[in-house]
Amino acid sequence: MKKFEEKTIHSTEIFKGKVVSLKVDDVLLPNGKQSKREIIHHPGAVAIIPITNEGKIVLVEQYRKALERSIIEIPAGKLERGEDPAVCARRELEEETGYGARQLTYIQSFATSPGFANEIIHLYAAKDLYKIEEKRELDEDEFVSIIEVTLEEAEEMVKNQQIYDAKTAFSVLWVKLNEM
Amino acid sequence: MKKFEEKTIHSTEIFKGKVVSLKVDDVLLPNGKQSKREIIHHPGAVAIIPITNEGKIVLVEQYRKALERSIIEIPAGKLERGEDPAVCARRELEEETGYGARQLTYIQSFATSPGFANEIIHLYAAKDLYKIEEKRELDEDEFVSIIEVTLEEAEEMVKNQQIYDAKTAFSVLWVKLNEM
Repeated sequence: MKKFEEKTIHSTEIFKGKVVSLKVDDVLLPNGKQSKREIIHHPGAVAIIPITNEGKIVLVEQYRKALERSIIEIPAGKLERGEDPAVCARRELEEETGYGARQLTYIQSFATSPGFANEIIHLYAAKDLYKIEEKRELDEDEFVSIIEVTLEEAEEMVKNQQIYDAKTAFSVLWVKLNEM
Repeated sequence: MKKFEEKTIHSTEIFKGKVVSLKVDDVLLPNGKQSKREIIHHPGAVAIIPITNEGKIVLVEQYRKALERSIIEIPAGKLERGEDPAVCARRELEEETGYGARQLTYIQSFATSPGFANEIIHLYAAKDLYKIEEKRELDEDEFVSIIEVTLEEAEEMVKNQQIYDAKTAFSVLWVKLNEM
């Protein structure tokens, strides 16, 4: 996993924010030349495919400032420092959807933008859902609404770009292959 | 698509690099409060699922400095300013794999990290491939090797995390649902 390794000669931190930080690394390339890599550091995240007892997928709509539009996604959220991804997945599921899950199954992890960011998403399926009595609070700058859709509706939302998000597009195919 | 809109009060450019730039936006939330959003601006990219006449998927292995490891992905590359994504897809396919495609079909587009970046990937399937006589040059800081795998091998690479990339994980499921 170190093929074509680029060794760091020097790393300069440009920005350290609440969510991301940015470093520019001077690297030694496999051919002995040097180059620069602009790298976004992110704490990593979880995403959850919640499947109701009726076989519907629970999705959340929220405004994404980066895209200047609202999109519809599976529930997701950033890892706290040192947090177990499964614990984070249960928390985000409860906060964003009001559902708890009696069954939480790890699917896989992947990088979202390996060309410029180190964000990894850990993906879970949540089943045997129940409504929690006291819905946990969202973060104070977070506004979401919930939609429960059939697989066919989710596929239609991918086509009309209401679903416009890689992890959610993956999840729609995953449900089709694994749950139907 | 403007539900829960966050209006920009002020935008501060922190960094403008070769690949990404970073802005911090002060925003007005739906509840009238203010918050900050750290946004990575990226030119957008294309990715291509190349399927050989033998039904194999052509993948590229490359070192990803952001992850400090090499991973195996479908061919992909950044859009030049104003470039037609289909033109970019053909160029990246030829540069990275040495294949041209007689058939290039648009699949869909998605954001890779909508929580902090505006990167959109436009995904294509490339079929009826042919070896090009003079392989186009890669970028001078780009080092890749090519692997042709069956769907079953690709699925195994997802499990053992040689494939560790959202667009490629999506593509493996897409091939399974659409080409088999």
